[in-house]
Amino acid sequence: MTESQTLSQNDLRQFTENILKAIGCSHEDALLAADVLICADLRGIDSHGVARLSGYVRLWKAGRINTKPNVRLVRDKYSTGTVDGDAGLGLVIAPKAMEIAIDKAKSHGSGWIAVQNSNHFGIGAYHAMMALQHDMIGMSMTNASPLVAPLNSKERMLGTNPICYAVPALNEEAFILDMATSAAANGKLEIAERNGQSVPLGWLQNNEGNDTSNPKDLKGGGYLLPLGSDKDHGAHKGYGLGAIVDILSGVLGGANYGPWVPPFVSFLPVKSDLPGKGLGHFLGAMQIDGFEDPEVFKKRMDHWINRFKNAEPAEGKKVIIHGEPEAALYKTRLTDGIPLVIPVVKDLIALAEELKADHPF
Amino acid sequence: MTESQTLSQNDLRQFTENILKAIGCSHEDALLAADVLICADLRGIDSHGVARLSGYVRLWKAGRINTKPNVRLVRDKYSTGTVDGDAGLGLVIAPKAMEIAIDKAKSHGSGWIAVQNSNHFGIGAYHAMMALQHDMIGMSMTNASPLVAPLNSKERMLGTNPICYAVPALNEEAFILDMATSAAANGKLEIAERNGQSVPLGWLQNNEGNDTSNPKDLKGGGYLLPLGSDKDHGAHKGYGLGAIVDILSGVLGGANYGPWVPPFVSFLPVKSDLPGKGLGHFLGAMQIDGFEDPEVFKKRMDHWINRFKNAEPAEGKKVIIHGEPEAALYKTRLTDGIPLVIPVVKDLIALAEELKADHPF
Repeated sequence: MTESQTLSQNDLRQFTENILKAIGCSHEDALLAADVLICADLRGIDSHGVARLSGYVRLWKAGRINTKPNVRLVRDKYSTGTVDGDAGLGLVIAPKAMEIAIDKAKSHGSGWIAVQNSNHFGIGAYHAMMALQHDMIGMSMTNASPLVAPLNSKERMLGTNPICYAVPALNEEAFILDMATSAAANGKLEIAERNGQSVPLGWLQNNEGNDTSNPKDLKGGGYLLPLGSDKDHGAHKGYGLGAIVDILSGVLGGANYGPWVPPFVSFLPVKSDLPGKGLGHFLGAMQIDGFEDPEVFKKRMDHWINRFKNAEPAEGKKVIIHGEPEAALYKTRLTDGIPLVIPVVKDLIALAEELKADHPF
Repeated sequence: MTESQTLSQNDLRQFTENILKAIGCSHEDALLAADVLICADLRGIDSHGVARLSGYVRLWKAGRINTKPNVRLVRDKYSTGTVDGDAGLGLVIAPKAMEIAIDKAKSHGSGWIAVQNSNHFGIGAYHAMMALQHDMIGMSMTNASPLVAPLNSKERMLGTNPICYAVPALNEEAFILDMATSAAANGKLEIAERNGQSVPLGWLQNNEGNDTSNPKDLKGGGYLLPLGSDKDHGAHKGYGLGAIVDILSGVLGGANYGPWVPPFVSFLPVKSDLPGKGLGHFLGAMQIDGFEDPEVFKKRMDHWINRFKNAEPAEGKKVIIHGEPEAALYKTRLTDGIPLVIPVVKDLIALAEELKADHPF
């Protein structure tokens, strides 16, 4: 068991805001970006919460983050449009772009925003879930650091390019699918590497194109495998999903795509001769009322969820509804606090000292 | 090598129209449905072409297909709406619903249609590709015969629930992703079963919940596995993708969902106490012009496609762009004809004799 320190979400949120203000974010933007990060920690997506804070600061120090961005629509046509994120934090740009998608959905039934000139947007679920309170279905995707090789290739061409859908229910928790299109998210490899553990075969291959269970082989020139892992098990599908996320997030709105996506991970360089601006997202919202009475739909979702919860289980197992474990953890951590492993705590203390920000550790 | 007979696409198309008219389809509907089936055969998706014709006729004989459907919008709100397929052939309903989505995209930037009261819609690519000629990105999904068990379950709860995206390029072939969200499409198991072959472990489990390579175990009470195959390799993701397809295709528009989806396969019964109407689809179209100048976008797609084609290949392999092999086969078969394996030929001759339709075999 890794040692950890537990902080209240309030303390951790305040700390995160302090750090973000220290690098030049406005009060409003710092609150928003902190909300995205703390949401990840509360939901148990520890790889995407405050553990990433020093990564965002690293990009800012490298001159890759504009902490005073002018996020604006640069193309606008009824239910569709493109947002320029002005090289800001994706944590700020994506919620603002999602707000525009939701406004469009109010006026046009649905709203779809391609985002260019952005950076890492945190957890996709935060943005997609913004739609829920409006009785809408939310969708978010983003391209990301090129770490995944297409089927039949040894070259890092795609990010783990996540897809997220958020669908409201009535009495049940919302259905939240938030998944990388690679066999495993990079965060899982980072955790295994930190703990000195091996990972299942089928997650990555090394720089010679051979299967490996050593997570360190990724930094050594290896690459992640698409969902499906190999041809027999559908890796062309994971590759295809990663590709469509790249096309909608990058190619459509004028962001970079494929191997040119500016990496968040520190062990990859930024490429030259970039074909687009920054990193890209694709965000959407659809009014349920455009298809069905929202109350009727949400009752049906409860029915769907309960039927799936009660599907005949495999020996000693339990069928899980996407988003349910995260919603349960959210409630627990809201009262009991957020546990941070000691390497993350040390990293955050160093960050606070460097930026002369108050810290609660 | 299985023996086969090759027919021109014209002869096969005329024959398919004859059969569809013999069961009561209008001239116009027979042409449309035949076009969907022949498109599958031309693209090499042999499992979804005329090989399925007798399956549609079987449903019609069981009183489950209305060959004179009144396909109409029953809910309509700007870019969104729901279509009632009136229990017609999905082969007719889906293109008509996609036409409505495209019309909505012309007026509102994007168009999104949930379809209830439909049946098996053939290949998803046909419907999504209708968007291409309008400089739109097309999307189609459908729920299907319950054959897939969620992760941690032994119960058939979901169909192979395919997702399809069609994206135009300039000089390159369009990017067409058309994939089942299970580890393997049922058509692949059918072919293996017909040829007496085994299939890779990770495609299905038998009625006792054990891995099996015998495709016959599916009919024996087994179930297909979601893309990812097992927990370590992301089967929760394949399950989640199948679930969101079910929610958008079934729950949203009032069709059946989950285990209640009326099966196309003959070895499953129709359930009672259905929560919805027929089977459901979800179709979408987005104007590229809403995000970017279409010429600029299509040039970028050419760039994307060429970069991926030239990704460093694994030893002796070649990186494939989704839709490219199918487009190449389409051209070949358009001139050289469509090869049908002898069991399919025999099946079609029997069908023609039963329905007293002319046949070219």
